[in-house]
Amino acid sequence: MPVTLYDDGNHKCIAFSDLVVCGDDWDDDSGYQVCDSVQATQFLIINNNHAALIDPGGNLTYSRLYMAISQYVEPKNLDYVIASHQDPDIVASLNKWLVGTKCKVIVPELWKRFVPHFCNPGATKGRLFGIPDAGMDIEIGGAAIKAVPAHFLHSEGNFHFYDPISRILFTGDLGASMVHETLCAKPVENFERHVRTMEGFHRRYMNANKVLRYWVNMVRGMDLDMIVPQHGAVFQGQESINQFLDWLENLKCGTDIFTQEHYKVPGQAA
Amino acid sequence: MPVTLYDDGNHKCIAFSDLVVCGDDWDDDSGYQVCDSVQATQFLIINNNHAALIDPGGNLTYSRLYMAISQYVEPKNLDYVIASHQDPDIVASLNKWLVGTKCKVIVPELWKRFVPHFCNPGATKGRLFGIPDAGMDIEIGGAAIKAVPAHFLHSEGNFHFYDPISRILFTGDLGASMVHETLCAKPVENFERHVRTMEGFHRRYMNANKVLRYWVNMVRGMDLDMIVPQHGAVFQGQESINQFLDWLENLKCGTDIFTQEHYKVPGQAA
Repeated sequence: MPVTLYDDGNHKCIAFSDLVVCGDDWDDDSGYQVCDSVQATQFLIINNNHAALIDPGGNLTYSRLYMAISQYVEPKNLDYVIASHQDPDIVASLNKWLVGTKCKVIVPELWKRFVPHFCNPGATKGRLFGIPDAGMDIEIGGAAIKAVPAHFLHSEGNFHFYDPISRILFTGDLGASMVHETLCAKPVENFERHVRTMEGFHRRYMNANKVLRYWVNMVRGMDLDMIVPQHGAVFQGQESINQFLDWLENLKCGTDIFTQEHYKVPGQAA
Repeated sequence: MPVTLYDDGNHKCIAFSDLVVCGDDWDDDSGYQVCDSVQATQFLIINNNHAALIDPGGNLTYSRLYMAISQYVEPKNLDYVIASHQDPDIVASLNKWLVGTKCKVIVPELWKRFVPHFCNPGATKGRLFGIPDAGMDIEIGGAAIKAVPAHFLHSEGNFHFYDPISRILFTGDLGASMVHETLCAKPVENFERHVRTMEGFHRRYMNANKVLRYWVNMVRGMDLDMIVPQHGAVFQGQESINQFLDWLENLKCGTDIFTQEHYKVPGQAA
C-alpha cells in the first residue's frame, strides 16, 4: 500500500515501499529481509497537477510503479524522473520510463554520460539534464524541489531532494535501514533499536566521516519535518532527526576503517 | 576492431573498445570525446575454450558485443559475466546476457542484492555469485582469474581482475582516460601528456588518496605486463606502469579535496 507522507490537496508526497518483485523470504525473528534483491522505496511528488518520480528503481519495480502512480496522475504526462545517483535500484528502469512517458530525466551531472548505458541508443537524446555539483532547484508546477549535495554518501555524485512545502528531505541511501516490510516508510519509534538495522550498511557503503560531518552541518540548518531514505523506515520530528544526525556525526565508515589489510592479492602472502 | 591484448593459442584476452552506440561527436583538436555517453571497453578472456566477459557494459553495447564475441566463442556457452562494480556502463545489459547465454554472473558481494534490479524478476535466480571483500579466484577452463580488492576506487565494493597467464590487471575505472577512439586499448606513449586525459576524472570520482596508496602498495608487488582500464588507453611495460602508480600515489582526490563549501543548500546563504 502507498504511504502518503504529505497531502494538502494541491501538493502530495507519496511513498511506494512494497513494489520490488522478489522471493519474499523474511526472517520473522529478526525482521531482517532475506530477499535476493534489496527492498527499495520510490517517491511520487505532485504539485499543481505536475508530477515527478524520485528514484523510480529498476526493472523489479517498473510495471507495479507505473500502475501504482496511475491512481494519482496520468503516467504518460509525468514531468520528471529524478535520480539521486547511478545505482540499478535507483534508476535501472530508465529506458522504460523514457518509452512509457514524456518525462525529462534529471541526474547528477557526474553520471549524465553513464546513465545512457541503461537505455537503448538515442533514448535519452534531448531529455537528459544534469545537476551540477552545487545542486539546483527543480521546478514542478510552480514549486521548487531543491537538489542538495550529498556527494560520497555513498555515490561520488549524489543528491538528496528537499521539498520545502512538505519539509521532507529525501536522502536516498543515507539513513537506509533493512527492516520488515511493515515498517518501511513508517516513522522510527525506537532509535536505539533501529540503529542495528542501519549500522552495517552505513559503515561499509558510506565513504568517510569527514563528509558525513559536512552533510550533518548543512542539514542542521534546514527546516525539516521528515528525513525519508530510499530503503526502510523514516525519521519524523525534530527529536528523531536529531538522533539520526548525532549518530551519523560520530560514525566512522568506509575509507576511515579500511587498512592495507583490505588491499591484498587473494592467496598471496602480504 | 577488437584489440588482442594476449594470445598464446590456448589463452586469449580481447578488448572491444568501439562498440558503444552514440552520437559520434569528437573534438579533433583535443582528442576529447564529446559523445553523449561515455566510451567503454569490454573484455573477453578465453582459456581452454571456456570464456568470461569482464564488464560487458550496458544496453548501448549488448548487440554489438554479442556479435563481436561470436568470432571467438559460441556466445550461448559463455561461462561468466563478471562485473567490477554496479555502474550502468559496467553491467546494465545483465538481463540480456542472462537471457541470451548460459552464463553465471559474478559481482562484488556488496552489490549482489542490487544488481537484480537490472533484471526481470527471477532472472538472476541461482546464477548470481558474490565476490567477498577480500577477493577470490575465479576458475575459467582450469586457470584462475584473481578478483583483487579495489574498494572505493571508485565504487565502495569494487574489484580488479588479474590474469596471471597474460599478466594483465584489468582495473575498471582506475586509469580511465578520455581519449580519441583510435587510442583506446592501445599503450600510452607519452605519460606526461596522457595525464591530462585522466586527471579530472580521477580527482572527482576516486574517493581518497589513502586508499589509492593501499592499492598502489599492493600492485607494486604484482608481476604485471599491462594495466588495462575500462575506458581509454592502457599502460604496458614496467616503466609505463610505474609512471601510473607514482602519479596515483600522490593524487589528492574525492573526500580529500571536498570541504564544507561543497555541502550547502542551493540558494541559501551558508
